[in-house]
Amino acid sequence: MDNLYLALVHFPVVNRKNDPIGSALTTIDLHDMARASMTFGVRGFYVITPFQDQANLADQVIRHWTQGAGGRLNPGRKQALELVRVTQTFEAAVQQIYTERRQPVVTIATSAKKHKNSVSTRKVKQHLAGKASHVLVFGTAWGLAQELMDKCDLQLDPITGTGDYNHLSVRSAAAIYLDRLTND
Amino acid sequence: MDNLYLALVHFPVVNRKNDPIGSALTTIDLHDMARASMTFGVRGFYVITPFQDQANLADQVIRHWTQGAGGRLNPGRKQALELVRVTQTFEAAVQQIYTERRQPVVTIATSAKKHKNSVSTRKVKQHLAGKASHVLVFGTAWGLAQELMDKCDLQLDPITGTGDYNHLSVRSAAAIYLDRLTND
Repeated sequence: MDNLYLALVHFPVVNRKNDPIGSALTTIDLHDMARASMTFGVRGFYVITPFQDQANLADQVIRHWTQGAGGRLNPGRKQALELVRVTQTFEAAVQQIYTERRQPVVTIATSAKKHKNSVSTRKVKQHLAGKASHVLVFGTAWGLAQELMDKCDLQLDPITGTGDYNHLSVRSAAAIYLDRLTND
Repeated sequence: MDNLYLALVHFPVVNRKNDPIGSALTTIDLHDMARASMTFGVRGFYVITPFQDQANLADQVIRHWTQGAGGRLNPGRKQALELVRVTQTFEAAVQQIYTERRQPVVTIATSAKKHKNSVSTRKVKQHLAGKASHVLVFGTAWGLAQELMDKCDLQLDPITGTGDYNHLSVRSAAAIYLDRLTND
């Protein structure tokens, strides 16, 4: 598998009142999701923020681990952070993915809530066997704004556990989805 | 399932040179692993540290979310943090688990490295169908010290992805194991 990408969206997302907002970067998201990406063969991990100061913060973190002291101390972290790419918009990320592989890009939204047409990870796994690029899209804060959800080609079933509690961290959700999508 | 517990060990663990150390608390571990615990029906999540200042920090975090302003703003987080219990030693956690259910306690060590006798999550799932209590044990820093690994009743297979990279965060690893153990 060399056709799966991750995207972590900081705008447009919603707050707990479901108002559209832009969220601040949580640097541990970059680490955890990059490490999970390396583990499960993700080709690139896009961190999407329109805010210049937040993009600068992401760049600082990435540089520390890919070119600075961090990577010399911890080569495993260096490998992971090398997968991270920062863009201002979701559209720019999709465009870069298209440019990289010259294949159609299938965008797959994730959510903690059930979407009326959502598909199973099994279904997405079948898609991944094809040639198209696929990007699994995660929202920060209280999740992706509806407008972005609706714009995606597919909506993935939420992760359900043993009850109806649905408050996993985005870091945990990404790890579980990647495991489900790549293991038998 | 009402017989699964989680433990996060801060001593004895090892550093990157494999020297035995005690590690500092990472507060996001409490949040992420508590949220995954709530999601997958874990009965209690033990945070184990012999250091009084670290135990105090854990207590502060827990109180903020279970009794303070945090829980009023975010009831989902309150529910999760209510699962967290702090003990000084691993043995004290096992004793508490025994006292709670009056059933044998099966201890299951996790590691990013393959242990010679390690068992699959499928095998552990079969165990969980029985009456005994089970505790899934995670190490912070560079993982559980060998002495604690060896003391556990079972060693769980490491999570393998699509290659040989094995540097998931403990938060991601816990989420994946819980998903594998509780879903079909």
